[in-house]
Amino acid sequence: MDYELAVIGAGPAGVAAGIYAVRAGISTIVLEEKLVGGQIVVSPWIENYPGYENISGMDLAEIFKNHLKKYIEPHELEPVKSLTKTEEGFGIVTSKGKYEVKAVVFATGAIYRTLGVPGERKFSGKGISYCATCDGFFFRDKKVAVVGGGNTAAVEALYLKNLGMDVHMIHRRDQLRAEMRYQEELEKKGVNIVYDTVVCCFNGDEKLESIELKDVNTEERRTENFDGAFVSIGLIPNTGLVRDLGVEVDDNGYIKVDDFQRTNVKGVYAAGDITGGARQIVTSCAQGAQAALASTEVLGKQYPF
Amino acid sequence: MDYELAVIGAGPAGVAAGIYAVRAGISTIVLEEKLVGGQIVVSPWIENYPGYENISGMDLAEIFKNHLKKYIEPHELEPVKSLTKTEEGFGIVTSKGKYEVKAVVFATGAIYRTLGVPGERKFSGKGISYCATCDGFFFRDKKVAVVGGGNTAAVEALYLKNLGMDVHMIHRRDQLRAEMRYQEELEKKGVNIVYDTVVCCFNGDEKLESIELKDVNTEERRTENFDGAFVSIGLIPNTGLVRDLGVEVDDNGYIKVDDFQRTNVKGVYAAGDITGGARQIVTSCAQGAQAALASTEVLGKQYPF
Repeated sequence: MDYELAVIGAGPAGVAAGIYAVRAGISTIVLEEKLVGGQIVVSPWIENYPGYENISGMDLAEIFKNHLKKYIEPHELEPVKSLTKTEEGFGIVTSKGKYEVKAVVFATGAIYRTLGVPGERKFSGKGISYCATCDGFFFRDKKVAVVGGGNTAAVEALYLKNLGMDVHMIHRRDQLRAEMRYQEELEKKGVNIVYDTVVCCFNGDEKLESIELKDVNTEERRTENFDGAFVSIGLIPNTGLVRDLGVEVDDNGYIKVDDFQRTNVKGVYAAGDITGGARQIVTSCAQGAQAALASTEVLGKQYPF
Repeated sequence: MDYELAVIGAGPAGVAAGIYAVRAGISTIVLEEKLVGGQIVVSPWIENYPGYENISGMDLAEIFKNHLKKYIEPHELEPVKSLTKTEEGFGIVTSKGKYEVKAVVFATGAIYRTLGVPGERKFSGKGISYCATCDGFFFRDKKVAVVGGGNTAAVEALYLKNLGMDVHMIHRRDQLRAEMRYQEELEKKGVNIVYDTVVCCFNGDEKLESIELKDVNTEERRTENFDGAFVSIGLIPNTGLVRDLGVEVDDNGYIKVDDFQRTNVKGVYAAGDITGGARQIVTSCAQGAQAALASTEVLGKQYPF
């Protein structure tokens, strides 16, 4: 056995798991395909992680990394190629080596679906956001578009409306996929729903200024000014590696966990965005800490708090 | 209605709830009987809140307070006298006023039971701790006492043993209350259990150096050197205010909550130590954030993420 615990993914959940695991006396390896920090690396400003009033995602990632490094050297740029059940635990093959471990905390996150239209990448973090809870507060009293028509888009639109924004939902079809209760709320709250319309491109200079929209029936294009756009067309949880282990996921593809972050497979824990939910930095950190503490139960060490 | 939401208690859970509530556009009042920070104020050093490698509890409390104040002025030194159900929500009477609110996040924490012996207060945070997960790492390879005989004491003793400490459980009776599986683990791991023994007093100069123990049968006293002592004789959740509302608690007196921090009473949420569990700063913060987000559901605003 090379390590007792492997933490796969070093976003907020993986960082917290690593810190808590080592502090609990667990021999641990933290594997990260890219760099420590995960999604926060691309967040220009974070204002809702308690303890940091206003910090760039890059800076918070650096702080998290240094905190983790106090306990353990994370393996950055070392993607996991496969994860298999073995007699005594799990076998992990990465781009650089093979490891035998007894337990795994899975914290590989989720990726926001993008529209893939011109200007989207350029203005990401400069007017375009993928998370209303994270970034809505920056746009108070502004005019924003919410692109999407599902439950999440509806909830995000309501969240933003509630912050006093002029909210326009842009949806490509002639009706929303969101449940009726959401649709009723949207109408009641005065969210403007723009049906049969797609985004052609995002325009601006330093930051987003306008969106070019196309009516899918008439093919007519028009440009409308917006201060912000929330792209809310879903997330893809990075569950590729655990599917073969038989880890259960919910209807949206997120890993199902209990209060201790246990999956249905003994010795496999999951934390952070990959489990869905509020998907905030602080909730991910908490889940990572809890997962690490709980993993002691399969390491023959103690029982979870 | 004076406010939409009242957050009662401004420890980590209440602070996070306040930040998230205001950022979600909820009119909020935060009521705190003492000062913002809660239990962390008395923690000399905190090393496991992700983002702060090493900080005094006092300093982290100050940072949390300033973060909260960016959004809302907390009402410090304003204890809640009563909390009652009203037609439209809840009525709160404090030492300074009356408030009508629609929803409540209850985050009043829990108090560690103390032994009440000489030296305990003096060396609290200077060798005496009430939380192994929080402080165990400071005592690696040292000799420590765990005072108590229940499940929590057993889990804490195992946690500390696992960190390489020489662990001695001091218990006043001739057998532990902890479940048999814990007792077996304690024996297997080599935790020394000192039965029929109570702590008379804690001694030292600047920090804890020794403990005076008494054999309850022979009344014989002896002094033994210890680097640290973990007092693990339980916690008292501060649930006084919510009992009358019919909020359900578990066998240990902690408030029962679901994944969204809802209690069984509509409009009442709970977060932090009062709900039991891992009782870490980061888990409390996460619960507070989640509770605030969830409370929007009863404010006619949106549905929880």
